[in-house]
Amino acid sequence: MTAAVLSIGTELTRGELVNTNAAWISDQLTALGCEVTEHVTVPDDPEAIRGALDVLSGRNAYLVSTGGLGPTSDDVTAVSVASAAGVELERHLASLEAIRERYAAAGRELTDANARQADIPRGADVLPNPVGTAPGFALDLGRCRSFFLPGVPSEMKRMFSDRVRPLVASTIERKVHQIRLRTFGLPESVVAAKLEGLEAEHPGVCLGYRATFPEIEVKVWARTDGTASAEERVAEVAREVRRRLGEIVYGEGDDTYAAYVGRELRARRMTLALAESCTGGLISSMITDVPGSSDYLLLDAVTYSNASKSKLLGVSGEVLRGYGAVSSECAGAMADGARRLVDADLAVSVTGIAGPGGGTEDKPVGTVWIALASREAPTVTEHYALFGDRHQIRTRAAYLALRTVARAASR
Amino acid sequence: MTAAVLSIGTELTRGELVNTNAAWISDQLTALGCEVTEHVTVPDDPEAIRGALDVLSGRNAYLVSTGGLGPTSDDVTAVSVASAAGVELERHLASLEAIRERYAAAGRELTDANARQADIPRGADVLPNPVGTAPGFALDLGRCRSFFLPGVPSEMKRMFSDRVRPLVASTIERKVHQIRLRTFGLPESVVAAKLEGLEAEHPGVCLGYRATFPEIEVKVWARTDGTASAEERVAEVAREVRRRLGEIVYGEGDDTYAAYVGRELRARRMTLALAESCTGGLISSMITDVPGSSDYLLLDAVTYSNASKSKLLGVSGEVLRGYGAVSSECAGAMADGARRLVDADLAVSVTGIAGPGGGTEDKPVGTVWIALASREAPTVTEHYALFGDRHQIRTRAAYLALRTVARAASR
Repeated sequence: MTAAVLSIGTELTRGELVNTNAAWISDQLTALGCEVTEHVTVPDDPEAIRGALDVLSGRNAYLVSTGGLGPTSDDVTAVSVASAAGVELERHLASLEAIRERYAAAGRELTDANARQADIPRGADVLPNPVGTAPGFALDLGRCRSFFLPGVPSEMKRMFSDRVRPLVASTIERKVHQIRLRTFGLPESVVAAKLEGLEAEHPGVCLGYRATFPEIEVKVWARTDGTASAEERVAEVAREVRRRLGEIVYGEGDDTYAAYVGRELRARRMTLALAESCTGGLISSMITDVPGSSDYLLLDAVTYSNASKSKLLGVSGEVLRGYGAVSSECAGAMADGARRLVDADLAVSVTGIAGPGGGTEDKPVGTVWIALASREAPTVTEHYALFGDRHQIRTRAAYLALRTVARAASR
Repeated sequence: MTAAVLSIGTELTRGELVNTNAAWISDQLTALGCEVTEHVTVPDDPEAIRGALDVLSGRNAYLVSTGGLGPTSDDVTAVSVASAAGVELERHLASLEAIRERYAAAGRELTDANARQADIPRGADVLPNPVGTAPGFALDLGRCRSFFLPGVPSEMKRMFSDRVRPLVASTIERKVHQIRLRTFGLPESVVAAKLEGLEAEHPGVCLGYRATFPEIEVKVWARTDGTASAEERVAEVAREVRRRLGEIVYGEGDDTYAAYVGRELRARRMTLALAESCTGGLISSMITDVPGSSDYLLLDAVTYSNASKSKLLGVSGEVLRGYGAVSSECAGAMADGARRLVDADLAVSVTGIAGPGGGTEDKPVGTVWIALASREAPTVTEHYALFGDRHQIRTRAAYLALRTVARAASR
């Protein structure tokens, strides 16, 4: 079953608002087993809406549209749909009553503009709006079942869930099953090269990639026929992907790298201290974004100045003068100092040059030292030469530090 | 001048990713004076891409497309564009060399898949990618000047700014002049109410609002006729907006709240120490995202455990036992301790309950204490009852702490 998503609103074509509705609806339709063939966004303009309806309804089984059902003069969706369907607008009395009650409950009078929201194309099925004023409606444009919902996300989602999803679900036979594997550590091209040939070996199972810096997500999916076999085939390919990619696969679905690192620490009842310089609190911010992270993160000392490196972490003047703040020696002393301060099992430090300024010939922008101190083993340091802008260098350094923690915890 | 935005990627039509590129590009094109007539999103499918190119290029002066330029087998934009333009793909040697150098700098070998990114339609103008591997390109499809950029937002934005914007700007006669005022501190409905009537008083000048949590951007714009008068009118209304909104306007354009706070500190040669609990490094991460922040930020002590609050910041057992870690007393002691540790001019601390767990009847989720310590004045604390999810509570608490710093610095 093919489906298209139509978003109506000049605030969208002017770029004043990011279109989150199209992604949400597409995610829902895809999970139901629809193939979403296109998204189209047009301004609040009857001609543009009419044109999009003609094209999209001509080549899709379903159309889900949002926006333009409000009370203001630029809300022209209903009249445009009526024109596309060759019918008149008609005031829907039950909807009018619902709108009147909603306004009365808020202590407001019903204006003509508000009443206009009850005008829907003759013959359309009304989709009640339990959380707002404007009702939606559904009708057939040619052979395309078409749904028109408000643009307010909370209203749209409720009405889609109540009325659109059950109807679409009842007509779909071949749903999609998928597993999303989250990876950090290799670029997309290398990940793809390691998985080459896998699709050919497993007909019907597809691979997809998504880069969200600095991660690469690998998606394994297949259409199901209602039996368990597609799910088994997807699971088998996912196991093979894990085998080929090894350590870089850290989780599935909406997992995050910091949550994975937290699980590794929690599983071994280990505590962590951090000492950040160029990442400036980013590592800690990622870790504490995870609920319950106070169980393992004891401290982050963001020591942005030499003085704070000395006073808090006990980095000696000798190290700072002799090797500089961006050095193996300083990184090691920072990690040692942070670990001892709170008697943590592990401590990781990062010091480097994120740019755009501050680079030298010896230590160009992107020079990063990461150190790991632990209760039992000697402190070790690693050198990285990262590239990109300030944001990319900081983000990649934070991920590399988290990887250092995960490797140490799982050793 | 009409323009269309084409987004290419199955991850978009499947709803796995919210399309932020289309909004950003539309905002840019609108600001240049273009009328954006439609957004279309299609999967990584040559036939669908080709179909969209034919339709959009047939009715627009400009087309800006993103996505599908990567190294994997599902990246088919270049070959589809070549087909639409009726030309062959051709390997662009300078781009190939740039890609090879980028890989060499990262210590990696160039694979065939990577090299494929240098294949562009014959006759197209190459748009270099200074922050990634895949170059973009520009060519005429019929009478439509068409630009093809990578889907990675940082790369797309840089290439649009470097190459697309100047070219489009040079062809537009009635440009749009706008001033974007950045605000933090009041909800959109209150901001809009304070500015009511302003558009009616200044015909031809328009106001727009955009919410990017927790900020509200107010856009003041008008179409210009090449004379200075529109710019003067926009500037006049912007001054009136600043007058009506007062302190909450902190900057213009792409300014950030942390950069504003940094300027306030720098202007008074003041240094800052932070002590974060529930925000977990977020404030520091925002501050150090600004180049040069090491001039004023000396330290952030992210003391997530009671032990680290005691050991590092000297918060007494009495305070922790008697009042708890989320209390006015603890916040004050944290700020005092952080300030004294590095002898900073100012110190701000945040302690609170970001949720979802950890709330009690006395101290529900969203309870936040912020303290300000300074060299001269007694330490003061403020209580906030914030709402929203963990992310929203942490973000708003970080902004409120930054506001505390800005107010103290500008006093």
